Amino acid sequence: MSVTRASEPLPHPPSLSSIAIGVDYGTESGRVLALDLAKGTEVARSVIVYGHGVMDRELDGVTLPPDWALTHPQDYLDVLHQGIPEVLAQGNIRAQQVVAVGIDVTACTVLPVDASGSPLCFSPEWKKRPHAWPKLWKHHAAQAIADRMTEVAQTRGESFLARYGGRLSSEWYFPKLIQIFEEDPEVYHAMARFIEVTDWLVWYLTGHERRSSGVAGYKALWSETEGLPSRDYFTAVNAAFDSPLAKLGTQFYPLGTPAGTIRPDLAPDLGLSPETSVAVGNVDSMVAAPAVGLEGPGALVMVMGTSICHLTVTEHEVRLPGITGVVKDGVLPSWYGYEAGQAAVGDMFAWFVQQAVPSAYQDAARTAHLSLYEYLESLAQDLSPGESGLMALDWWNGNRSILGDADLEGALIGLSLATRPEEIYRTLLESVAMGTRIIVDNFSEHGVPITRLLACGGLPLKSPLLMQIYADVTGLPVLVSDSEEIPARGSAIFGAVAAGHDRGGFASLGEASRMLAAPIRTRYAPTPEAHAVYQEIYAIYRELYQQLGTTSSEWMHRLKAIRLQAHRPRYRKGESL
Amino acid sequence: MSVTRASEPLPHPPSLSSIAIGVDYGTESGRVLALDLAKGTEVARSVIVYGHGVMDRELDGVTLPPDWALTHPQDYLDVLHQGIPEVLAQGNIRAQQVVAVGIDVTACTVLPVDASGSPLCFSPEWKKRPHAWPKLWKHHAAQAIADRMTEVAQTRGESFLARYGGRLSSEWYFPKLIQIFEEDPEVYHAMARFIEVTDWLVWYLTGHERRSSGVAGYKALWSETEGLPSRDYFTAVNAAFDSPLAKLGTQFYPLGTPAGTIRPDLAPDLGLSPETSVAVGNVDSMVAAPAVGLEGPGALVMVMGTSICHLTVTEHEVRLPGITGVVKDGVLPSWYGYEAGQAAVGDMFAWFVQQAVPSAYQDAARTAHLSLYEYLESLAQDLSPGESGLMALDWWNGNRSILGDADLEGALIGLSLATRPEEIYRTLLESVAMGTRIIVDNFSEHGVPITRLLACGGLPLKSPLLMQIYADVTGLPVLVSDSEEIPARGSAIFGAVAAGHDRGGFASLGEASRMLAAPIRTRYAPTPEAHAVYQEIYAIYRELYQQLGTTSSEWMHRLKAIRLQAHRPRYRKGESL
Repeated sequence: MSVTRASEPLPHPPSLSSIAIGVDYGTESGRVLALDLAKGTEVARSVIVYGHGVMDRELDGVTLPPDWALTHPQDYLDVLHQGIPEVLAQGNIRAQQVVAVGIDVTACTVLPVDASGSPLCFSPEWKKRPHAWPKLWKHHAAQAIADRMTEVAQTRGESFLARYGGRLSSEWYFPKLIQIFEEDPEVYHAMARFIEVTDWLVWYLTGHERRSSGVAGYKALWSETEGLPSRDYFTAVNAAFDSPLAKLGTQFYPLGTPAGTIRPDLAPDLGLSPETSVAVGNVDSMVAAPAVGLEGPGALVMVMGTSICHLTVTEHEVRLPGITGVVKDGVLPSWYGYEAGQAAVGDMFAWFVQQAVPSAYQDAARTAHLSLYEYLESLAQDLSPGESGLMALDWWNGNRSILGDADLEGALIGLSLATRPEEIYRTLLESVAMGTRIIVDNFSEHGVPITRLLACGGLPLKSPLLMQIYADVTGLPVLVSDSEEIPARGSAIFGAVAAGHDRGGFASLGEASRMLAAPIRTRYAPTPEAHAVYQEIYAIYRELYQQLGTTSSEWMHRLKAIRLQAHRPRYRKGESL
Repeated sequence: MSVTRASEPLPHPPSLSSIAIGVDYGTESGRVLALDLAKGTEVARSVIVYGHGVMDRELDGVTLPPDWALTHPQDYLDVLHQGIPEVLAQGNIRAQQVVAVGIDVTACTVLPVDASGSPLCFSPEWKKRPHAWPKLWKHHAAQAIADRMTEVAQTRGESFLARYGGRLSSEWYFPKLIQIFEEDPEVYHAMARFIEVTDWLVWYLTGHERRSSGVAGYKALWSETEGLPSRDYFTAVNAAFDSPLAKLGTQFYPLGTPAGTIRPDLAPDLGLSPETSVAVGNVDSMVAAPAVGLEGPGALVMVMGTSICHLTVTEHEVRLPGITGVVKDGVLPSWYGYEAGQAAVGDMFAWFVQQAVPSAYQDAARTAHLSLYEYLESLAQDLSPGESGLMALDWWNGNRSILGDADLEGALIGLSLATRPEEIYRTLLESVAMGTRIIVDNFSEHGVPITRLLACGGLPLKSPLLMQIYADVTGLPVLVSDSEEIPARGSAIFGAVAAGHDRGGFASLGEASRMLAAPIRTRYAPTPEAHAVYQEIYAIYRELYQQLGTTSSEWMHRLKAIRLQAHRPRYRKGESL
């Protein structure tokens, strides 16, 4: 359910109170929000759809191999240069009112830069090399390296592995870096840094490389107490990869701390003051916790968009399988923060709407003045749980939690000649809820009980049916935050904390969150009858999940290997385009 | 790939030679063909789309339960009364030239009639009772009864079970009859006969009830040497069902024998002479064998339309699992004839094209002046085997062979955000070919080696890609008959044999077949590279087939049970509508 609406003014009067700007970079677009720190209101916002977007089929006319996903650095800069002046103008905000800017970006979305911080792909010398471009979080072509890293960590009994649920993801920093090292050594040696886009943008804004400890913790195997894995570990993965930290650095800064202020030479272009604080960067979804009002254990935050990021916290560290990471202070200061996730959610619904709905439905939706999503939802909500006889595994983009296997793919069973599009659509909604229930059960079974779901993002506001299905499938209440700009709001909150009380911000995250978290719009309670049917379906779902995801996961792996073989002639390793 | 084209004259001149008329009743339409017995040419044909068609959602505005499929008897009569005069006029054929009429109908498609042969549903008293209407072959609501019949037969060690591959189908005569007995006893007691539509139409044309031994053999558990199962067997299935043969009778007539001549009161309406012979009825697909030139063991005939019927013959009887039946003389006189089948083929492709192709594809097809099928085929043929990473189980209408489980449903695995409609379409084509390969392997593994495939029907002529995939998946040559009217041609051949040599027909089926079988239009040979890739994919397919179809078949069975539960409030057993 991607949003491409034009920037628009919000129904708030101009304000002279302190403002923090949050900039949230998603997969397809960037969003800029001006948050009034006195009232907690969203004063102005701007949505900039990326000009280049996801480049997963070709780069400059040349076909990319399967599982690649690149982006263009200019897209990120455009969001700052268009979006910030836009919200200032819309909200009639003066530069002096803006006390801070906070940024969050999808992660691990990471790019090679030179010593000045300029993207390698901006130079004519490197721009034709795919490995010189930013790799988007969902670039999955380093799966074999991630598997090797997991195996070596298991063999060596590396303690860090338990912080990541026992398995490393191909989406993370080191698999992506080692892929470059192995496939295009020239690019590897030419780069001074391989850096998260969130950290690169902070560098761009402030002139200082100040990397975030949260991002390093979740994506680059760093821990405050244990540091980074040893050189020996990395050389066991690849004997030649003997300077593992050369492109990463070793200094990381906590969430909510200042990285600096806006570069004086840049400030006029953005319409900001050089006094404005910039917070250390963050991950798009993880920044949501203070914006939805997460204050402690028991609740699972679900940041729902193209994918879902699940967040929860505990007082004491629990090491459990099936999560993507546990990091001290990673979500909220002073708690252990856990991340889990589902890799295809809004993305999968969009795939369905674009690739699998017949024209009769499009015509009917048009006649009813509904979007195709709304029309499908109106039909799907008239179906009873179980009525379609269908079941899906939502692995259209692999499985992040609890299996951590990017090579798994989606499945749909129970199809018949009577199957209708709205039945498949509802089944996809159910599959996402069941995928979350697996994650909830996994937390609960390992001593991290979950008693309610805090949902935020555009999806929960747009699809009440999805939220009711969540309540009915999990048996838990679902609370939906009344803001479409939760991550940007979270970034603004972290910005306000980085600025500090004396510069018009807040002294602590707790204080800021109590003042600035979005209110709850709707609470969905489980329906007992529907929950009872879903209990039966979920029992079958768990077995199918187990079979296709673990016992017989080689089926999809073999199909994928055959697919890569079929594609191979079009591209060869390390070849420049 | 249903055909709805209007009746049209064929490019043949009027003829004064002997003519046989074949009438072929499919699922959606009936086809009437005039075959020149001297030249073997198709002189005229007419296609009549049924006015009522398949009634599987509602009857007269009242919702039917899942898995029901009814038809309207008037549709069958309309084909005779419109179609026969039409082909006579088109071909400029005189009544006296027509030596015979042969009929074939989908089976087991069966209806309750009174003692005069009039359908029960034609009477005001019964027309509101769903059980008074003809049950189409794909009425699958008697699955529980079929399962009980199989179980009782196993327990009692009934020898007949081995003739049916070890499992009885819900599509057959007795499960459908016992369903009426149990759910609507009044209808059961009101009917004089429960009769195959093919036999009922022969009764209508001649005034004589002359049931076919082939149909009785494949669908009603009858055997020339062993007769019918015992009364004790049936009372073990249902203690009250103690007159099992009351509605069936015990006299059956071989294929290619005369049932009588056209009723004098009916002949003028049809434009035929009362001297014209009518052959004993046959099953739509099984009638194809002489029309494609099957003469003995080694070849597998594939009659391809909404479903596939597979036919082969051996000299000595082989009892093997996974077939739907072996009947002496059932396919060709003097051989043991084997039937196997796949329940959803053209039906499944039509489902995809109607329910799952986005409007952009429809627009592109229109622009290219192609049907949506042709457009999808043009895209799908550019894909390499294995390129999509997808795999499907073609169980959209259950699995007929080799599992005999109508409660199984379709599955699609390997879906990703990059999956395109043409990839799914090609995967459905592949899934049908893989389903056939399972059947071929099953025959070969049990001593019935198959060395080539004889494909006929509209599908093989329309989709060269499907035929090449068949050759590549099975590794066997595929020969496609050059006629779109193979079953009707087969019925005309059986009619000509029933008329006999002295009345302008033929003395034997062998003689008739050598003269009248359709020529081969195209021979497809396996491509070694494609076959090698499909060998790998087929290995995974077999495992998935085994898992979802046997080891874990309860998953789909439980989903289906939940689905029936979800639907139940709308309809109760035996309730009149």
